[in-house]
Amino acid sequence: MSEPASGPGELPEGIPGRLMAAEIGEQPLVWRRLLTEGAEQVRTAAAAIAAHSPRFVLLLARGTSDRAALYGKYLVEIRHQLPAGLVSPSTMTAYGARPDLRDVLMIGVSQSGGSPDLVRAMQVAREQGALTVAVTNNPGSPLAAAAELGVDVLAGPERAVAATKSYSAQLLALYLLLEQARGGSVEAAHALPTLGAAVLRGQEQVAVAAERYRFAQRLVVTARGYSYPSAQEAALKLMETSYLSAQAFSGADLMHGPLAMLDREVPVIAIRSDGVGGRALDAVLPRLAETGADLFCVGSPEAVQRWGGIALPENVPEELAPVLEILPLQQLALHLALRRGGDPDSPRGLRKVTETL
Amino acid sequence: MSEPASGPGELPEGIPGRLMAAEIGEQPLVWRRLLTEGAEQVRTAAAAIAAHSPRFVLLLARGTSDRAALYGKYLVEIRHQLPAGLVSPSTMTAYGARPDLRDVLMIGVSQSGGSPDLVRAMQVAREQGALTVAVTNNPGSPLAAAAELGVDVLAGPERAVAATKSYSAQLLALYLLLEQARGGSVEAAHALPTLGAAVLRGQEQVAVAAERYRFAQRLVVTARGYSYPSAQEAALKLMETSYLSAQAFSGADLMHGPLAMLDREVPVIAIRSDGVGGRALDAVLPRLAETGADLFCVGSPEAVQRWGGIALPENVPEELAPVLEILPLQQLALHLALRRGGDPDSPRGLRKVTETL
Repeated sequence: MSEPASGPGELPEGIPGRLMAAEIGEQPLVWRRLLTEGAEQVRTAAAAIAAHSPRFVLLLARGTSDRAALYGKYLVEIRHQLPAGLVSPSTMTAYGARPDLRDVLMIGVSQSGGSPDLVRAMQVAREQGALTVAVTNNPGSPLAAAAELGVDVLAGPERAVAATKSYSAQLLALYLLLEQARGGSVEAAHALPTLGAAVLRGQEQVAVAAERYRFAQRLVVTARGYSYPSAQEAALKLMETSYLSAQAFSGADLMHGPLAMLDREVPVIAIRSDGVGGRALDAVLPRLAETGADLFCVGSPEAVQRWGGIALPENVPEELAPVLEILPLQQLALHLALRRGGDPDSPRGLRKVTETL
Repeated sequence: MSEPASGPGELPEGIPGRLMAAEIGEQPLVWRRLLTEGAEQVRTAAAAIAAHSPRFVLLLARGTSDRAALYGKYLVEIRHQLPAGLVSPSTMTAYGARPDLRDVLMIGVSQSGGSPDLVRAMQVAREQGALTVAVTNNPGSPLAAAAELGVDVLAGPERAVAATKSYSAQLLALYLLLEQARGGSVEAAHALPTLGAAVLRGQEQVAVAAERYRFAQRLVVTARGYSYPSAQEAALKLMETSYLSAQAFSGADLMHGPLAMLDREVPVIAIRSDGVGGRALDAVLPRLAETGADLFCVGSPEAVQRWGGIALPENVPEELAPVLEILPLQQLALHLALRRGGDPDSPRGLRKVTETL
């Protein structure tokens, strides 16, 4: 199977969503680039991390990149067996905290590498003794300059305001970086471009599903484990492009309160990958069905057969599933926005680079 | 000023929301109990933490208690100047991670102390070398038994499904524990019961505000810094009791995407405390107003004068403001639920103790 040769030129200018559509379609090519041309730089950064033997890992990010950072946190906690945390950047910027960060690995994740609060927090982390790594789509960015080590996710210029290819490239870059930093094999990742191209060809089915949410104002996305960041990113993409109140909950947290909010008027998308996280979600799905909520599964063919939805390739290692499972959800956000008459390339009120202090 | 002598017996049985109303009203008494009878046990735990000199802090919680844990994370990052993280419990339960937790302080926060996944994660943390502390409302609970150190938040039996008094008691307990663990003074906290009673007497104004949201289906709560957990807890309370899709965003994250979702149909509640976090939010409020969103402020009298809302007492140290600012938001959830014909004491689909694995 080969990847579609889609690119920014595919649809003529002026067609809503052409940038986002093209960037969604480019993802298998982006991953291949990262796995080939990008391999050496990732290995170098991974070796430096291994030599440093960090005892604690912090991740620093905002927006879509913060979902990639959360995925990295699961990799650190489960595969490196190290404690990890997501930094609240304001503690180092607005509040001026200067924490003791010896033995800490600080990984900053950002598409543009340009948000001033992340740059400042990265500078502080380096001054305070952390080993700093910037995972960005711009190796010439201030964030990359602030960090000792850099990984370029090689997604190419991202022009749609809603990030898509940079997100999956961040996931893959974090996987390659963190797995190699612990001496693991990343062989399984080489199947992703071909698998991704196959998933993208299911677009027609996603377009049909988008019809279903044409008039939805609220929506919940749920998952557990490695797929929980996918749920968060899917919700963010739907908010950004289709303006609905989409909320993500881990399957466990959903039972601690938000379950009350669900009824026939609130559709639920469940990301049920194969593996430990997916199986942990199986206890939650019947409870959701009881509420009368409209359930739609993305992932395991077995779960999709039972609950309806979109099946994804089987036998993908659980920790790589997030790279694939976000694809139909990005397509859903695109198609829903178009059906609602919006232009997902330039959502109202947003700028591509967000400058928060 | 004295606190209202409200208790569970105040309203007759069968009146919707009587438990939640009583438990909201009890909070100043609960805090006074924790500050007097509870002081010694907190000091003992704080001394043990100080003796251990942890280098990293992890917090473990779900639901409402997870918001209190996030508040604790800000205290650790800003006041202790230590790196901190919120644990994803599934990494230690479902995924079986056995991280190296030497030099780590693990703080579990739970009302009931009964959720099996938290108990298991606490046991793992202790086996893996962490100093473990359970902050619960039940010193006889399995979570308390699993931890070396315990803090009883002394909120008394909480019978409403929607947690209120246990939440503010958790905040105060974490403040007392963490401030004393770093040798700080907790004198300022002694003003809270009187201030809280005054805030609660503003209930009439909250009831009027609740009218405004009678038919809202979506709502956003925003804040920065120490008040961000208050935004999350307010959103959760509104979801649980009034079934609307309430979402919390840090003011900075709101600019990274979700801003697009806002328009005249999505009311925004901004928690604008006095201090660094509140001032950081000031840049966000005009951007929100530009979207045409219906804005309502809770906190600084100055911000309330400009944007409308409910003013809270001035000259409260920023890190204590969360204990007070949640009160009108709890009252809002209660009054909105009642106006919508619900019973906030027993929201549909929820159980008081949530058993996730």
